[in-house]
Amino acid sequence: MRLALQQAELAYHAGEVPIGAVVVHIGSGRVLARAFNQTEVLHDPTAHAEMLAITAATQRMGGKYLEQCALYVTVEPCPMCAGAMLWGRVGCLVFGASDAKKGYTRYAPQILHPRTEVVSGVLGQECQALMQHFFQARR
Amino acid sequence: MRLALQQAELAYHAGEVPIGAVVVHIGSGRVLARAFNQTEVLHDPTAHAEMLAITAATQRMGGKYLEQCALYVTVEPCPMCAGAMLWGRVGCLVFGASDAKKGYTRYAPQILHPRTEVVSGVLGQECQALMQHFFQARR
Repeated sequence: MRLALQQAELAYHAGEVPIGAVVVHIGSGRVLARAFNQTEVLHDPTAHAEMLAITAATQRMGGKYLEQCALYVTVEPCPMCAGAMLWGRVGCLVFGASDAKKGYTRYAPQILHPRTEVVSGVLGQECQALMQHFFQARR
Repeated sequence: MRLALQQAELAYHAGEVPIGAVVVHIGSGRVLARAFNQTEVLHDPTAHAEMLAITAATQRMGGKYLEQCALYVTVEPCPMCAGAMLWGRVGCLVFGASDAKKGYTRYAPQILHPRTEVVSGVLGQECQALMQHFFQARR
């Protein structure tokens, strides 16, 4: 999650909503992808950190499934990103801060693949603080 | 929807799940993007027709919102694609066949932006038939 937070900080300094994601191969601990939210610079509403990380990790793995991987993300994924994790069969989702407004659990927790393990609240306060700083600075 | 069906047929012949999508600017009728499902060839679980069409349309528009656009897709979108339509603020969603198993309405109809108009069942039988042919041929 420290690596994901580093990605979120890169987003922060780039003027993007500060969310970062990292995909790790569980067996080897190898980092397959790291990404941060780039919706502004890419003019692309689908360019969330998780989406970019999933696409990059599947390219690295040479297949479209990530069953043996954990995806770390600083903020609870939205339904789009949770849906991508379903299709990519992500083995484990670890997120930091919850998102009561736009998180997938508010819409439908069952969007995720039934075999995806979920761990929440990891470095949650730090992940949340970065988001709060970002939005406070824009008010 | 005829154009979206053409895209779905391209997917069919490429060995991809045959779903096609087209984004049209409502005011001018201009086609901004056309795409078909490419998850296999790209090894990317996020490469659904709708996702590719949304990204292509926002690139064409030079912004990340598609409020003045209609997205035509041959099959009801999944939660990932519905989530992308939320973020992209798609003005109108028109789909053909319903998807009782993986469609967003099964999970949470409210994933879509509240202002997105939805029209369903347009050329529904033809869109459905193409899917059935595809999966029957693989059994």
